[in-house]
Amino acid sequence: MTERLAPGSVIGILGGGQLGRMLSVAASRLGLRTHIFEPGPNPPAGHVADRVTTASYDDGDALAAFAAAVDVITFEFENVPSGALDALESTAPIRPNRESLRISQDRITEKDFLVRLELDVAPYAAVDDEATMSEALKRIGTPAILKTRRFGYDGKGQTTLGEPQQAAAALDTVNRAPSVLEGFVEFSAEISVIAARSASGNVVCFDPGENVHRNGILRTTSVPARITSEVREQALQIAEIILIGLDYIGVLGVELFVTPGGLVVNEIAPRVHNSGHWTQDGCVVDQFEQHIRAIAGWPLGDGRRHADVVMENLIGDDMDRVWSLAADPSVALHLYGKSEVKPGRKMAHVNRRIGHSER
Amino acid sequence: MTERLAPGSVIGILGGGQLGRMLSVAASRLGLRTHIFEPGPNPPAGHVADRVTTASYDDGDALAAFAAAVDVITFEFENVPSGALDALESTAPIRPNRESLRISQDRITEKDFLVRLELDVAPYAAVDDEATMSEALKRIGTPAILKTRRFGYDGKGQTTLGEPQQAAAALDTVNRAPSVLEGFVEFSAEISVIAARSASGNVVCFDPGENVHRNGILRTTSVPARITSEVREQALQIAEIILIGLDYIGVLGVELFVTPGGLVVNEIAPRVHNSGHWTQDGCVVDQFEQHIRAIAGWPLGDGRRHADVVMENLIGDDMDRVWSLAADPSVALHLYGKSEVKPGRKMAHVNRRIGHSER
Repeated sequence: MTERLAPGSVIGILGGGQLGRMLSVAASRLGLRTHIFEPGPNPPAGHVADRVTTASYDDGDALAAFAAAVDVITFEFENVPSGALDALESTAPIRPNRESLRISQDRITEKDFLVRLELDVAPYAAVDDEATMSEALKRIGTPAILKTRRFGYDGKGQTTLGEPQQAAAALDTVNRAPSVLEGFVEFSAEISVIAARSASGNVVCFDPGENVHRNGILRTTSVPARITSEVREQALQIAEIILIGLDYIGVLGVELFVTPGGLVVNEIAPRVHNSGHWTQDGCVVDQFEQHIRAIAGWPLGDGRRHADVVMENLIGDDMDRVWSLAADPSVALHLYGKSEVKPGRKMAHVNRRIGHSER
Repeated sequence: MTERLAPGSVIGILGGGQLGRMLSVAASRLGLRTHIFEPGPNPPAGHVADRVTTASYDDGDALAAFAAAVDVITFEFENVPSGALDALESTAPIRPNRESLRISQDRITEKDFLVRLELDVAPYAAVDDEATMSEALKRIGTPAILKTRRFGYDGKGQTTLGEPQQAAAALDTVNRAPSVLEGFVEFSAEISVIAARSASGNVVCFDPGENVHRNGILRTTSVPARITSEVREQALQIAEIILIGLDYIGVLGVELFVTPGGLVVNEIAPRVHNSGHWTQDGCVVDQFEQHIRAIAGWPLGDGRRHADVVMENLIGDDMDRVWSLAADPSVALHLYGKSEVKPGRKMAHVNRRIGHSER
């Protein structure tokens, strides 16, 4: 029997961005409090958290005090420094587990793991220098994408090669960091499955969403995805295989390419995921609450979709549209409380219910 | 043109209970921060607020500092001491306005106001002592209900008279406080309308809910209410008349009796209301966000109902059911984070979607 955290318990969250913010709100619905650990000042999550620790991830004293003050620790981003986790794990449980984090922090490790689970991924090869790049290009060909193994997000740390002659320039673009060369996948759509596994091993998947990116950043996720019921079932099965393979507790995002030959796993994220924001206005229990339920040892909630929804990110100057969106019927606003608008910065999202009508 | 509070602005909330807590969460969706003013320690709203001031309502310095730190002031309960508002109003706008609060703080003032609007109320008469009680009984008869004019809530400060001989005992029950004697209304149902009026004068009403009380405390609200479309329209019109009559900004709760002779107004509450909690899981924009939108000068959101919902309060020992409810599909939990369970104390509510099915 898994221990349940009683109402009043404290969830520690590493990272104080919008994901931590929405996790905090979800925790409040369950009577749980949150404590945010974040190096930066005035974190968005701090506006709705019970406590905030402002300290660096290498501040051992701050980490120790944080761990002692919480009942379970989770994170809103996968690049948590390993040293910080070393300092925390003897005091409070970390969920999802460190192995899930380790695997997803490195694109090669992640792909090797997916291959071991007999899941399809794009052709890939490690690239460390011009020699390994040359070998990789021979095997994979062009077009191809070079991505840094670590710390990439929102299209950062990656570049496309149209032909082998671009190898040196591509290596320069990623600052010659350890990388992976990935073959192009011809896909008809990108979908993602947001899946949750409870501490007792139950799995609940949200309905797959269909994603549209622009400049490497997610723009919209639409549910339902335009896929057959067979593809839908296959997608949910893949998510479940990954959750079980990682002995995972919490919510995980899985990005998949829909190809004529079947589903290809693009990447996984060991956390709540931007492509799951639609669940806030399309399900009784959203991805944030599902994650909190899982890591708190609670039963998972009702993740069935009850509406058709299009989630749209508001990025940078998109915030100029906020007043017209505020006046737009059937639009639900979700602002992140960030004080400064910057190009490429995710400032908010909106969920639009499609075909909405009074019952 | 009404001034809109930009994202990042601060909403000051008098009172740190569950209503302040859910207002705080709603404000966060709009990128607004909240500052709670509450005399008691560890207020539920404090867990999800940006700031908390712990001070008495007669602490002038604390009130002044609070008013200076916020952009607009609202309240989660109608019994805010008038002196506190005197100290606040020169520094920050108070919404809804003080006149709405003044009227609803006193049952006689409130009924007089409703009568001036030509709305139906139960027969009533002021009772200050045995003499006025005797006159009131002559006019109204029995059965009747004696209620204190001020500070009543959840069935507190009231008692029923089956016959005139119970007059003295009834006066003792309310501690001889200034009171009102109300005639019994034979009703087939009690419904409530949660209505919002924006700073620019737009009105949006939520669908009427049907209420069931036990021991004077709300147990359940169900939508849709079992009323005809004519009664529904009449209920919404009454709410609009009251909002306009008060020149109201924010969300107001109106309790109505459905009688063979039409709708009778039971009472009004100048705030978000327990019978509107279903909106959290039945509407794109719930009563809490609607209130924040109104007082922040934003356009009102989409309050159309998209689901059938039964809201149930968890009171006192009902919290023993929380684990089974957590595992119950189609139930959304809303816990208030109160550290101590007491008999009659509202600890949480659940919203159950009826006829819920995957699309």
